[in-house]
Amino acid sequence: MRLLEEKILKDGKCLPGEVLKVDNFLNHQIDPVFMDKLAKEFYRLYKKSGVTKILTIEASGIAVATLTALRFGVPVVFAKKSKSSNIGDGLYTAKVASYTHGVVNDIVVSKDFLCKGDKVLIIDDFLARGSALMGLIALVEQAGAETVGAGIVIEKAFQDGGKIIRDMGVRVESLARIASMDDNGTIAFCK
Amino acid sequence: MRLLEEKILKDGKCLPGEVLKVDNFLNHQIDPVFMDKLAKEFYRLYKKSGVTKILTIEASGIAVATLTALRFGVPVVFAKKSKSSNIGDGLYTAKVASYTHGVVNDIVVSKDFLCKGDKVLIIDDFLARGSALMGLIALVEQAGAETVGAGIVIEKAFQDGGKIIRDMGVRVESLARIASMDDNGTIAFCK
Repeated sequence: MRLLEEKILKDGKCLPGEVLKVDNFLNHQIDPVFMDKLAKEFYRLYKKSGVTKILTIEASGIAVATLTALRFGVPVVFAKKSKSSNIGDGLYTAKVASYTHGVVNDIVVSKDFLCKGDKVLIIDDFLARGSALMGLIALVEQAGAETVGAGIVIEKAFQDGGKIIRDMGVRVESLARIASMDDNGTIAFCK
Repeated sequence: MRLLEEKILKDGKCLPGEVLKVDNFLNHQIDPVFMDKLAKEFYRLYKKSGVTKILTIEASGIAVATLTALRFGVPVVFAKKSKSSNIGDGLYTAKVASYTHGVVNDIVVSKDFLCKGDKVLIIDDFLARGSALMGLIALVEQAGAETVGAGIVIEKAFQDGGKIIRDMGVRVESLARIASMDDNGTIAFCK
């Protein structure tokens, strides 16, 4: 999606360790008008998939997932990163490694909100090594629901998460796919 | 807002300790079409206030804040609950107690995203003792910006946060104000 690639080149910053900082429109400050254009594109890509639910993970996936869910007219569920004292015991759980933060989190979703028969579109802001996405797919499987696909804002295609998950047979649509980036700020996108 | 009061009576659950569980449309699963009606009401209430930025706190404030920001056509910034390794050093910080979870968190916002001259509308899902809202107001003050008001989805009016913050001279608009609730599931709203 050219509009997103231009936004990344204009506003993104490369930090050491192949970290792409896009916190002025996606991760910390959110540009809702721009995000809504991404949501429109996810809707275009998956409108024939019979989506009944959007699944994302707190916190930075929630904004774009909510706007996408509004376009589909279906609920959005966000997986939480640790067990909250008032979430109840009936939980699906998976482990997710965050390489940025150097921790492994349990992610949880209430059994009330993912059900057998649900056709789930997973939305997230980033795909790199794929740990979060694999965790979310595991939650959907535990519920006996179906992952119809994933909609990712930015994929670091030079890392292997996208390949692994596509090789599992999951449809993954990434709106920007980064082929390479370096500490000097040079970003190249996949053709 | 009668629509919201009806939704709370239909879908909310009272748990011991005056916890109101509304995780099927607000806190865990989000009903985006319904949330967008709340966003429309926040816009109606504050459209003449010259809002330049929406501020909320992760995670469950993000959905309704994003939809509200879309209506205003301004950015939304979400305060983060602890220092992330790639957020940078230039931060405004405040302390927020969570009585539900029994912890005190540092909340942070990058200095890049709250600026002198900003007219900030704070949006959050709940107001009870007011700790989160006071923390967010403190972040706005640190930036030299102005809090034009707060938009709250559900206020527990039987706790003192709303009164304290209104007494500080801050405009607080809550879409549902709960006068009392008990463990038997009886909820009464303020007239």
